[in-house]
Amino acid sequence: MAQARGYAATDASKPLQPYTFERREPNDDDIVIDIKFSGICHSDIHQARNEWGNSNYPMVPGHEIAGIVTAVGSKVTKFKVGDRAGVGCFVNSCTQCATRDVDIEQYMPGLVGTYNAFEADGVTPTYGGYSDSIVVKEGYALSIPENLALDAAAPLLCAGITLYSPLMHWKAGPGKKVAIVGMGGLGHMGVKIAHAMGADVTVLSQSLSKKEDGLKLGADHYYATSDAETFKALAGTFDLILCTVSAEIDWNAYLGLLKVDGSLVLLGIPENAVPVHAFSLVPGRKSISGSMIGSIKETQEMLDFCGKHNIVSEIELIRMDQVNEAYERVIKSDVRYRFVIDMATL
Amino acid sequence: MAQARGYAATDASKPLQPYTFERREPNDDDIVIDIKFSGICHSDIHQARNEWGNSNYPMVPGHEIAGIVTAVGSKVTKFKVGDRAGVGCFVNSCTQCATRDVDIEQYMPGLVGTYNAFEADGVTPTYGGYSDSIVVKEGYALSIPENLALDAAAPLLCAGITLYSPLMHWKAGPGKKVAIVGMGGLGHMGVKIAHAMGADVTVLSQSLSKKEDGLKLGADHYYATSDAETFKALAGTFDLILCTVSAEIDWNAYLGLLKVDGSLVLLGIPENAVPVHAFSLVPGRKSISGSMIGSIKETQEMLDFCGKHNIVSEIELIRMDQVNEAYERVIKSDVRYRFVIDMATL
Repeated sequence: MAQARGYAATDASKPLQPYTFERREPNDDDIVIDIKFSGICHSDIHQARNEWGNSNYPMVPGHEIAGIVTAVGSKVTKFKVGDRAGVGCFVNSCTQCATRDVDIEQYMPGLVGTYNAFEADGVTPTYGGYSDSIVVKEGYALSIPENLALDAAAPLLCAGITLYSPLMHWKAGPGKKVAIVGMGGLGHMGVKIAHAMGADVTVLSQSLSKKEDGLKLGADHYYATSDAETFKALAGTFDLILCTVSAEIDWNAYLGLLKVDGSLVLLGIPENAVPVHAFSLVPGRKSISGSMIGSIKETQEMLDFCGKHNIVSEIELIRMDQVNEAYERVIKSDVRYRFVIDMATL
Repeated sequence: MAQARGYAATDASKPLQPYTFERREPNDDDIVIDIKFSGICHSDIHQARNEWGNSNYPMVPGHEIAGIVTAVGSKVTKFKVGDRAGVGCFVNSCTQCATRDVDIEQYMPGLVGTYNAFEADGVTPTYGGYSDSIVVKEGYALSIPENLALDAAAPLLCAGITLYSPLMHWKAGPGKKVAIVGMGGLGHMGVKIAHAMGADVTVLSQSLSKKEDGLKLGADHYYATSDAETFKALAGTFDLILCTVSAEIDWNAYLGLLKVDGSLVLLGIPENAVPVHAFSLVPGRKSISGSMIGSIKETQEMLDFCGKHNIVSEIELIRMDQVNEAYERVIKSDVRYRFVIDMATL
């Protein structure tokens, strides 16, 4: 066992605070990563504050992890000491089936979250990226391309794959009109990735306050959803709409913006159910779907794609002791566009 | 102009009654069909009673039409006098675009309904199949295979294509588990067609009262949705669920029966919106979609498929003067499984 330092939530109502804990002993197929940067995802806040009702404490959040390999087990083949490595939202997957379906493992039972979960033994808690190191099976670690800044690459591990996976699955590309709802940590990654895929990209944001950024990052068009005219002007326009907001918006209105056979894909999860009218779906063979992160195989493809197209997140780098203040700003959408903690400040 | 006889609704509250009207003069590309049989679709009742708020009177309902060609225009190539011909839900389509997209014309603007609509001139009303004859462009008439009984084939023109189209679009076939929700006029066609496609077919019906029929028509399994155990036993089972009921059921419960990447497809339209929770969609990349009839091209494919597999509807043949009584029985789901009017009784 090795001592690790980090920041932890000790219960739902207290701010995160310094915390010392033990990482498990590395096995033959594990690597040890010296964590350099850790992104802040809105779901960190939901879980730190037990807003999904399934939190275990003490909890060390963080699943957008980028660092350098400091040790490798004897059976490790993909990594060597000194390599750049990342960890995303999970550190193990289906151990109940005979085979691991590498294309959809994120949807299989038995997924082990990077934090607020238990290792396959069912008793050893997992701790996330707001810490100085992590021990992880090499099969669940990712290679981060050399040309990407390590701090700005960290959010690719969750925000990046959350957008890349549905863009690939629903075949965004040349000739396809894609809308991204919400211009935040997820949405701005969607703009960059969909643009690099060759799609015609529209941002649908509550206001035009981030329009300049949106166009600079790759959007072809930018509309305010607070303007009712937007829904008239864009009726029947899109092949794919990716909804990154968790607010309860009227999905029927967005379904009206789809072409025949178009898909509205939910990436955020509003707290309450949203009324959907069959008339919004039937007369155009439209769909509402959901999508959740991506498989390890797909996450590596996404990182390689981002390496090729020089795509990273737009970030605000913060000190570890600014994490609680950053949480408040995330809740107010006051960040352009992702907070990343510099773990050297721990 | 030729005189035609039929039954019409004269306003939303009165029973249908005998009605004499004029059919338009046939053009070079028209055929005239002597209507032998006309199916009764639940949407006939919705429209006769103005339940969708868009009814024009007098209205001659009926869009499951089967008969014999009695005249053909000089430019007609597909039909000759004496041929078996059918007409489904529409008699013209997009005249606004440069091209008619034959794969999805049913979703394009400019669709002209077989009744309760106006011809492309915008003023000539269309009248449906509860009558002795119809004049229709040959491009919107279908050939009915010789081996199918003409009376039992009539419902294929709406009920048949409504199920065939989504089964094809979502790739039902060997190795696929398909559930049909509702064992009525639509549902029983879904059982027959999905079975003929080679899918493993489950009926999800409110009770087990039609179980024997369901298994006889091709279902492999039959469950009652009134039994809460059904939703536990079948969790994560289906690739595709086709929902033929218009009642407001809890779609989230049915989404729980889908596998990863499964689709729940709505074919009926409940009056009110149904609350959908993103948690029902996101963790398994599931979809809710809608589907509406099919294109003319696909309807002909469906008829040829049904000819090959000897598939027709299970029907109760009635006299024209029994139509109002039949409407009441349709509303009570008291029909096994489709009423067809014998137009010889007109």
